[in-house]
Parts: sequence; structure tokens; C-alpha cells
Amino acid sequence: MRIKIFATGGTIDKVYFDQKSTYQVGESRVAEILRVANIGFEYEFESILKKDSLDMTGEDRQLILDKVKGDSHELVIVTHGTDSMDLTARELQAIENKVIVLTGAMQPAKFISSDAEFNIGFAVAAVQTLPYGVYLAMNGRIFRPGKVRKNPDLQRFESL
Amino acid sequence: MRIKIFATGGTIDKVYFDQKSTYQVGESRVAEILRVANIGFEYEFESILKKDSLDMTGEDRQLILDKVKGDSHELVIVTHGTDSMDLTARELQAIENKVIVLTGAMQPAKFISSDAEFNIGFAVAAVQTLPYGVYLAMNGRIFRPGKVRKNPDLQRFESL
Amino acid sequence: MRIKIFATGGTIDKVYFDQKSTYQVGESRVAEILRVANIGFEYEFESILKKDSLDMTGEDRQLILDKVKGDSHELVIVTHGTDSMDLTARELQAIENKVIVLTGAMQPAKFISSDAEFNIGFAVAAVQTLPYGVYLAMNGRIFRPGKVRKNPDLQRFESL
Amino acid sequence: MRIKIFATGGTIDKVYFDQKSTYQVGESRVAEILRVANIGFEYEFESILKKDSLDMTGEDRQLILDKVKGDSHELVIVTHGTDSMDLTARELQAIENKVIVLTGAMQPAKFISSDAEFNIGFAVAAVQTLPYGVYLAMNGRIFRPGKVRKNPDLQRFESL
Repeated sequence: MRIKIFATGGTIDKVYFDQKSTYQVGESRVAEILRVANIGFEYEFESILKKDSLDMTGEDRQLILDKVKGDSHELVIVTHGTDSMDLTARELQAIENKVIVLTGAMQPAKFISSDAEFNIGFAVAAVQTLPYGVYLAMNGRIFRPGKVRKNPDLQRFESL
Repeated sequence: MRIKIFATGGTIDKVYFDQKSTYQVGESRVAEILRVANIGFEYEFESILKKDSLDMTGEDRQLILDKVKGDSHELVIVTHGTDSMDLTARELQAIENKVIVLTGAMQPAKFISSDAEFNIGFAVAAVQTLPYGVYLAMNGRIFRPGKVRKNPDLQRFESL
Repeated sequence: MRIKIFATGGTIDKVYFDQKSTYQVGESRVAEILRVANIGFEYEFESILKKDSLDMTGEDRQLILDKVKGDSHELVIVTHGTDSMDLTARELQAIENKVIVLTGAMQPAKFISSDAEFNIGFAVAAVQTLPYGVYLAMNGRIFRPGKVRKNPDLQRFESL
Repeated sequence: MRIKIFATGGTIDKVYFDQKSTYQVGESRVAEILRVANIGFEYEFESILKKDSLDMTGEDRQLILDKVKGDSHELVIVTHGTDSMDLTARELQAIENKVIVLTGAMQPAKFISSDAEFNIGFAVAAVQTLPYGVYLAMNGRIFRPGKVRKNPDLQRFESL
């Protein structure tokens, strides 16, 4: 089994730069999470974007679509900001013959308490058990594109 | 979707007691991991045993079998020590019409770097996507009972 | 020995709010750090402000000065943002017959890797060993007001 | 300012080896703690022993004494298991013209919640502010050799 993982930014990879007192997307933490999980499968990792998903443009989504479409792996995980994850998911539905799972985090992976490790583990299981298609994997549930919304009060994805 | 989670002990729940300089099974960390993941499904949790899996007896396995069999949930996760996880998995194959996923950890969930969060996330996805049957979910892979061994040097489960 | 701890905000207590994609001062983490350290002295904690120290006004500093001056404890720790910690320290020099130690953090206490625990431990030792006066305790060193600058490139306090 | 740090083992550096289900002293975590604290002083680190302090012999204590005595630094921190820290401290009183601070931890530094970072920060402040002599720095307090006991129920050092 081989999995391709694309990072596009979002909270999961956010870091804190004190000198600017701002919060930016840093290097992806996914490789570190997989190292700690001591995973027994092969994967390829590629960073496409480092963007807060609120800042993603149509061009950015086209780039993600092109990258995933042009990749030879059947099993694909895309880490993504949560605010526009569903927009990207809907566009990725144009791709056939792949299992594509989008995931992210509500709390940065650098935090002591983050949903990042759980979500990456969840996505890794989902991508190898689900049939071809595009899925959002958040909060321990699997959603279909266009059938999900982010509840900002509960900080949780819900079915529409 | 409702999931039942049984804790039986193992490294995932190990804590350190300084006064005895020993290392024992403590309270299960699963509820805390699910809280941080802010999960959007319901679950029931039950602690059956608090044992290192090397110390598990035939009686212990019978108890686990009885508990899982007698439970009304279709989707069941069992957290378990890694050394005899496969022994228990083989016995649980006597149960029909359930998806049963066993998981655990190589490093205690209380450690800064632990595979516990990843593995629980992985198991939660596996239990809701796999067909009826018994599975071991470790190191980002899904194994069938009797078809797996723990490689103590790599600290990783492998296919037989 | 009794210590009074005032929290005024700063990076040490910053949290991340996903829905706004911003980073704000939250509840102080100091009590949690002292709980984990299982400290053997008594202390009183009071939150005065929850501000990034770049946003502190003259009025804010007057409030801190009044609070510390009006407090009955001899030993006082003030957690503070790093960018204007020295400004506040210089004003606190108007107070006599107290040991006042200002500290903070370059990385939020909620991060897996943060200097917060080290710095709080450092400040707790400094406040009980130093003579009356005002001190800044950062990066494992003790500085006097007006004799220190924050090096933004090294993310470290240095002697002037 | 230069500080010499000797590691001798103890809970602070304990790690967990799953294959043996035991708990052993590993590499010292002190350098990592100082790196995260981004300290602004120079230090030298030396690992003398990797022992649970209950297992320390008279010979081990002689070795520690010789090492500290033979070292050229005035400021010395010794990380040590808590159970016999005071025994070693009493022997180190034979050394003149140095500030020697012993510290350790009740919970391994590898744990999410450990007193290790706080205690190292505390010791670093203590060693640079206290007069010549030998001190135990635990639970946010400074103790003199022979005037302290470890309360195993509270997991805390107390004055005799």
C-alpha cells in the first residue's frame, strides 16, 4: 500500500512567530506525526501550498486539482484548512479512480492538545478502506462534499 | 453512529509511579483523546481490565469475549496491550454481526510523543468503514487475526 | 514562603481561535504549570490584564503598578508579554521593599515545546533568592530594568 | 556565566521500552529542555551515570563527588533520582567554593505533564543566585542537605 499526502496549509500546520505576534502556516507536521506513529506503509509527501484556507483563491484550487489529478497514486490524503475544505473537496470530485480524503485540524499540531494526530490517523484508515471518491474526514466522521458544514461555535464539522 | 469502546489495559494506558519506580496501567486515556479530537459521534466507554497484555490469562480473554458478545453495539473498539493483542483478536472471531477493531500503542498516551492519538483516530475510522469481522489496527495498517506478528525490533506490527 | 503572581497577558498565555484565525490571550497557564510542578509553597494568583504587551498603554502600566504596590506580599512574580516587559519593569522600580520578578515566554505555554515551564520555574527560584528590587527573568538569565533588550532575531533577551 | 550540568540518572530521564515492558534511564533530556528555553548562557553537559537513585552505591556517590570536585566550574547542577538525592547532597558538602544544586523530577521529562522543565528552570536560577554551598531544588523550594525528606504520598520534598 502506498499513500500520497499533499499539504496545502491550514491550522494543522500553523506556528506562532513571536516577533510579529502573528500566526502563520509553517512546515507540515504530517511527517512527524507519521514518524511517531511508526507507520508500516510507504508514502510520498508533497507540500503544494502554505495557506490559511480562507485565503485560498480559485487559482489555488485549480493547482490542487491539477496536482492530485496528475499524481499516479490511487490513495490520496490532502491536508487543508477547515474553512474552505468543502469547496476544494467539491472541485476534486472531477477526479476519477482515486480515493481522496481531505483532513485538517481545529488546533495546530504544535499544541499539546491538538486533534491533528487523531485526524491524520483517521484519514489514513479512511483512505485505505473507502471506495473511490472524495471524502472529508473531520471530528471522527466521514462526510461527502457538499453535504457538510463547519459549525464555528462547536468547532466541529456537521452533516448538512 | 454509536461506537462502544472497551479498555483492557496495555501500554496505551501506562503511567509511572515514582514511589515504586514501576510502571503500571492507569486510567484509560481514550476519553481524553476523543475530547481533544472533539468527535461528532456518540460512544460508550467501559473499562474491563487494567492489565499488561503479557499478564492476560485465558480467564481474562473469556471475560473480554463475554463483554463484547453481550454488548448491543455493532461497532466495537477494544484497546489492548500489544504483546497478546492477536491472541485476543482470534478469540473474538467467535462473535458475529459486529465490526470489532483492536488497537493499542507502543508508547504510553501520557508521553509527549505517542502513537496513541493516531491509533485511536485510525481505529475510529476503521470501525465505521470495514465490514463485519475482527481486525487489528496498528501502525497505520489493518490486519486480520492470525495473520500478524509484532516485530519487537522495529516496534511495529507486520503481516505474516 | 508565600508568592503573589500577577498575570498581565503576553505570549505565555496565548491561545488559538480557529474560527477567527487569530491568536489571542486566553486564561493564564501559570496555575497549571505550578500544579504539574507540585509546588510546596503557597501562592496567590490574580489576573490583571490579558494583553499583548505591544498593546499595553500607560494606563495599563499604571494599573499594574497600583496592583503590585497595593499588594501585601513581599515576593511578586508578574507574567508579561516580552515586547514591552522592560517598560513595565522600569515603572515598577518605584516600589520598595519587594522582590518583583517579571517573566513571560517566547512560545505559548499551550505548545508542546514552550519555554513557559522553564521560565516560571526560573522566576520562582529568582523571587525567593534575590534581594529587594525589580528583575526580568528570561532565557535562563536575570536582567535589571533598563539594562536589557529583546533580540528579535535570536528570540532572546540580552544585556545592554 | 557558565554552568556545568552533570546527569546521573533518575526519573527525569526515564523512558519506556515496550518490548520489555520496563522503564529505564535513557539519554538525558536536559539539553533539549535548555534548547527549548533558548537559554542565553553557556553550559557544559556531562553524563556520569544512568541510574535509578535507589540503585546507587557508595562507589557511585564517590564517582559523583570526584567528578564535581575535579570540575573547574563554580556553578554546578546535578540531575539525580529523587529517592537518594539527599544522600548524595550530603556527601557533596565536602566540596568548597562552588554552588552545587541538585534537582530531578517526579515525572519523566518525556511525559506531557512533567515537573522536569520547571525544575531545571528553577535550578538554573538557584545556581546563579545562591551563595557557595550545596542545595536541593525540588517542588519550587530550596532545601539544605540533611534538612529534607521526600514525602512519597504527596510526591513532594518537605523540610525536616
